[in-house]
Amino acid sequence: MPKTFLFERVAIVGVGLIGGSIGLAIRRKGLAKKVVGYARPPDAVTAQALGLVDEAAGSAAEAATNADLIIIASPVTTIPSVFDEIVGSIAPGALITDCASTKSSVIAAARRTLGDAFDRYVPGHPIAGSELSGPAAARQALFDGKRWLFSPVTDGQRANLDRLMQLTERIGARPAVLQAELHDAMFGEYSHAPHALVYAVCLAVANGPHADALADLAGAGFRDTTRIGASSPPLWTDILVDNAAPTVASLDRISESLASVREALVKGDRSALQSMIEQASTWRAQLESDS
Amino acid sequence: MPKTFLFERVAIVGVGLIGGSIGLAIRRKGLAKKVVGYARPPDAVTAQALGLVDEAAGSAAEAATNADLIIIASPVTTIPSVFDEIVGSIAPGALITDCASTKSSVIAAARRTLGDAFDRYVPGHPIAGSELSGPAAARQALFDGKRWLFSPVTDGQRANLDRLMQLTERIGARPAVLQAELHDAMFGEYSHAPHALVYAVCLAVANGPHADALADLAGAGFRDTTRIGASSPPLWTDILVDNAAPTVASLDRISESLASVREALVKGDRSALQSMIEQASTWRAQLESDS
Repeated sequence: MPKTFLFERVAIVGVGLIGGSIGLAIRRKGLAKKVVGYARPPDAVTAQALGLVDEAAGSAAEAATNADLIIIASPVTTIPSVFDEIVGSIAPGALITDCASTKSSVIAAARRTLGDAFDRYVPGHPIAGSELSGPAAARQALFDGKRWLFSPVTDGQRANLDRLMQLTERIGARPAVLQAELHDAMFGEYSHAPHALVYAVCLAVANGPHADALADLAGAGFRDTTRIGASSPPLWTDILVDNAAPTVASLDRISESLASVREALVKGDRSALQSMIEQASTWRAQLESDS
Repeated sequence: MPKTFLFERVAIVGVGLIGGSIGLAIRRKGLAKKVVGYARPPDAVTAQALGLVDEAAGSAAEAATNADLIIIASPVTTIPSVFDEIVGSIAPGALITDCASTKSSVIAAARRTLGDAFDRYVPGHPIAGSELSGPAAARQALFDGKRWLFSPVTDGQRANLDRLMQLTERIGARPAVLQAELHDAMFGEYSHAPHALVYAVCLAVANGPHADALADLAGAGFRDTTRIGASSPPLWTDILVDNAAPTVASLDRISESLASVREALVKGDRSALQSMIEQASTWRAQLESDS
């Protein structure tokens, strides 16, 4: 039975949790003839040893050469320099996408750098992650049932959307389109500000009088709330700096709400507090039932 | 084979998630001859129908009558009035404990109300919970492997500690002793302030411009972080008001850390941000490996 490949040669630049999981899913599902990966040593070799890619390239440009799809899955702040490195090696007709969790800055860099290939670049963002990182954390099912967002900004990009939606759907995800600035504002709200906040909680506890409390006093609630506090520091430094304005806007609204909660606590105003908690709880329960 | 009961008649006042789970565990493990429950209608009858208690009493005093152990598992702010209701029905030699997640205010109420029985009251706190509540959420394994803290404040209470430690150990928990004020400060830090903060996050998002974002844009991180935001509003209003001072102290330290994170973001000070995130992440990873 002949396989129907969606792509001949897929290049993945950055084969950590995200890029490695993409490679693994493409290979296991037979969606491309060959998957070539590049990452800073020793990650590419590790990824090959783990079966995440067929071949480890020596550079991003080498990986990109002759690829008909280039997926950039390296940290957001490295993406402009990846564009620089690969721009001379992008084959005619090749598609390019990325996996960064912010879109505006990456799109701006692509516009500056990619020239004619800009219309074949489709900004992407798979909504999947873990507090783990690196190729050893990759797994085929990472994207199963998860949204994979695309934020095309030109008609040329929109014309190339379909093949990427097909690929990501066959990987197991549910592709959708979201306008780039709205994407960044929403992720500031639902991901980046919560990360910043959880880092602040962990910092406060770590530097506070109860940092050395018995670990088992920290119940399931605290563990759930602060789980993302263990996420990769360089990765999240990059994301937060890259999407600073929407993140700060979300944090400021959280601080305002927190000031209201604090005021009710200080005054012992039970009815104001309960009404705020009810609104919060109703909204949160609704989020669960919507999913 | 004759059963060796630890108690003859256990009265549980409040048979929701916690009280109901205690009743179920005591019954299934054969730790008492009879378990009698009282709760506001219709919870006691529901608890009996679910097999959480052998018998539903018509009042707290009726449940307490002739009991050799009285466990108060109703919300923290109701406990003073429960003491009032049962004080005339406490049998000579009967032990009393509670399950409130704050200790200072409950101990003060017991001291005011219980008279001679104060020395037979052992303040308790099982560290188990769920965002669910009510008798239908009860389950036998709720306390398995979890800490169950006791905060005795008199020598008489300390003399009665042993029987409660035996009971909670046979329920499946790991009993330990923690001084009452330290207990409340630690729970302000690890539970009450995080709840207040998560309510503030949910409020801010619910009232913000992205409240109606596709539910699946809220990834696993946001869901974990805000899971406790769905907790019972009346229960948590009570807990937060009851432990307001330690909670506000913890919140203020969190706000200070958040201001530092925000400042680094606004300035684009990558190195300050990364060093804070590294400290947070290291501490949080350590918490996981300690547990």
